[in-house]
Amino acid sequence: MGDCLMSADAAAQAAARVMARCDALAEISETAGQLTRVYLSPEHLRANAHVGEWMQAAGMQVWQDSVGNICGRYEGVQPGAPALLLGSHLDTVRDAGRYDGMLGVLTAIETVQWLHQHQLRLPLAIEIVGFGDEEGTRFGITLLGSRGITGTWPSGWLEQQDAEGISVAEALRTAGLDAGNIAQAARQVSDIVAYLELHIEQGPCLEQAQLPLGVVTAINGARRLNCRFIGEAGHAGTVPMQQRKDALAAAAEWMLYAEKRTTECNPHLVATFGTLQCSPGAVNVIPGEVHLTLDVRGPEDQPLAALLAELLETAQAIAQRRGLRFSAEEYYRIDATRCDSGLQAALTRAVMQAQGAALSLPSGAGHDAIAIAERWPVGMLFVRCDRGISHHPAESVMAQDVATALQAYLQAVHDLASRSDSGSEVFQ
Amino acid sequence: MGDCLMSADAAAQAAARVMARCDALAEISETAGQLTRVYLSPEHLRANAHVGEWMQAAGMQVWQDSVGNICGRYEGVQPGAPALLLGSHLDTVRDAGRYDGMLGVLTAIETVQWLHQHQLRLPLAIEIVGFGDEEGTRFGITLLGSRGITGTWPSGWLEQQDAEGISVAEALRTAGLDAGNIAQAARQVSDIVAYLELHIEQGPCLEQAQLPLGVVTAINGARRLNCRFIGEAGHAGTVPMQQRKDALAAAAEWMLYAEKRTTECNPHLVATFGTLQCSPGAVNVIPGEVHLTLDVRGPEDQPLAALLAELLETAQAIAQRRGLRFSAEEYYRIDATRCDSGLQAALTRAVMQAQGAALSLPSGAGHDAIAIAERWPVGMLFVRCDRGISHHPAESVMAQDVATALQAYLQAVHDLASRSDSGSEVFQ
Repeated sequence: MGDCLMSADAAAQAAARVMARCDALAEISETAGQLTRVYLSPEHLRANAHVGEWMQAAGMQVWQDSVGNICGRYEGVQPGAPALLLGSHLDTVRDAGRYDGMLGVLTAIETVQWLHQHQLRLPLAIEIVGFGDEEGTRFGITLLGSRGITGTWPSGWLEQQDAEGISVAEALRTAGLDAGNIAQAARQVSDIVAYLELHIEQGPCLEQAQLPLGVVTAINGARRLNCRFIGEAGHAGTVPMQQRKDALAAAAEWMLYAEKRTTECNPHLVATFGTLQCSPGAVNVIPGEVHLTLDVRGPEDQPLAALLAELLETAQAIAQRRGLRFSAEEYYRIDATRCDSGLQAALTRAVMQAQGAALSLPSGAGHDAIAIAERWPVGMLFVRCDRGISHHPAESVMAQDVATALQAYLQAVHDLASRSDSGSEVFQ
Repeated sequence: MGDCLMSADAAAQAAARVMARCDALAEISETAGQLTRVYLSPEHLRANAHVGEWMQAAGMQVWQDSVGNICGRYEGVQPGAPALLLGSHLDTVRDAGRYDGMLGVLTAIETVQWLHQHQLRLPLAIEIVGFGDEEGTRFGITLLGSRGITGTWPSGWLEQQDAEGISVAEALRTAGLDAGNIAQAARQVSDIVAYLELHIEQGPCLEQAQLPLGVVTAINGARRLNCRFIGEAGHAGTVPMQQRKDALAAAAEWMLYAEKRTTECNPHLVATFGTLQCSPGAVNVIPGEVHLTLDVRGPEDQPLAALLAELLETAQAIAQRRGLRFSAEEYYRIDATRCDSGLQAALTRAVMQAQGAALSLPSGAGHDAIAIAERWPVGMLFVRCDRGISHHPAESVMAQDVATALQAYLQAVHDLASRSDSGSEVFQ
């Protein structure tokens, strides 16, 4: 490992501060004894205020934008220089963990804090955003914060209501914002050079590899389908095995095939049957119909599409061979988001320096970077979390890993923001 | 085909009468437009009255016994001779078909009708029982009629209540019977030589074989189990295939194995997974736990037990290999009932004579013969039914098949009741 800009001691102190601030933000919740903080709630605004103070203490100019993101800017050598944008989100699911989102905002502040402390200005400005909504907990629509920055709120979002019937427009008003001004949150493409996001992995790969950090290659695309095998119900005692059209047996054959093919196919593809219902559903009746859901994900759209096509063809073949019918209907689809190769390279160098080894992996979960990637190159750094658990109070990271993450993050930020060129070709 | 005792013309006429009587009994229902007739209901008593009249018209002495079975006796050459008992049940499931049970009683009456018409007395008397409860629809306990004849009502049955809270004892009283007298329904072992029952197949095997009739080898034993795979729930996007402990994938592997092994093992064994629940049961969560039911049946206890043991061992092995846990709990068990080989031989000869070919098959469903077999040798004759459908208004048999059945049934009854010996060694 080479020498990092941030010393081990400084990283340990900064990591302790990050952990303490994660704890402090975890207290800002609408439910006592649990962490639940949703978009435009009083708790959201209080979290923004805290984060804004910490940004200010790190030498940043701070503002809350028109969709409720908390923003900070650390000027470059030349005032008004384009910025390297860092960030993650400050909203949570219900009964959440304290690191998903917040860790990315608080580590970003520490990188700026270090530059400020060392009175370093770089060719690029550094900006940080604490996004107001990534999880979609309140309104059932997601990425409201990052789509504010990209200026791509679809029509209809303002009318979207929460469980109490409060619309986004009313919630903005209650939060002291104005639905008429949301376009003002959008940033010019030329203002920002690239986006980096640090986040907990939410999966077990880094733990498995015994590494604190990993560089994200892409955010997985996903498809979700409702699938159905239709056979023939029958008496469990009187219909011989050879004469059955058992929908559950057909589904079992398909599920087993899908598991095998997906595993063989590509280590980054995953296929999950999360729900299954038998009908009529009695102990002594052969299932005549089975409904099940398929969720497939992968970091590249083409192999994902090819796998899905093969699975659906096989389901048809199994159904046909058994004298059943099969149908499937896709009801959700999101394409994969590639991380910029220049940013991956910079993150990989920094990770090598901090932990002596590098690991690249796709992200199975969605992130603000999905929206930001529509306008700017994105890169992501993952931090190991205990047993891959997230969206749960048991979500946990080690302070030592956060220290290593801070060393790598500062290194990458310093590297990228130090380039004298405009950077655009570096990040393609 | 040899000449049958009953001519084709006589059989066609008798079959038409049987079909008309099935239709007439189907009108005696507690629900308009549907057939539902339960034990000790006013409809039960009305059905008994009709059947009693038809028995009387066939030259039989008729009585209703102390548990509500309708009984008839056609004397042999010597008054008081032991009897060959024929029968089936007159109660139904809810929204039932019109042949399950009733066909066996009405065809039995036609065999006696033929003897009576030809003024034939045989060494054995012929008795017929229309059992009052085989389905267990009203009280959730089954075979009340046949267990009245065997004298094996368990303690507690009199207190058993229906959905309205009416006990069996009260229902007996309302029907003009007396709970204190139920033991009087029990027959002396020496009174009866053997029991024959004609029934619809309730399965597709005869239809598949294109034969109207089949001889039953045994009534399947059955075991029912609640089974559970416990793995680990996880994020459908972030946990690689190799690191999953997917309870549904394990269940799929087991179900497919069970289908294959059962099919290979023995053409008369069946295994059914009728219900399956995933937990937590969300499209984007790997199932951490799966509950499923297994129903295995077969005509012989030992091969059934061996199959079940193998399936459970395999489930354990699959769970272990995948890092999951498996458990299973048997909650229902009934041993197989063998049909008497002498009675099978007599039925097979008669079936050969009537349809030119014989087919032996086990019964997948339960019958009154299960209870009767505790005291006397039993034999069963199956009649083809449309697509194997039963317990449903679509239950259907062809009059032509019923005619063939009547020819075979009379032949077998005549054969068995003509033996001058006591018959006991013939029926072992």
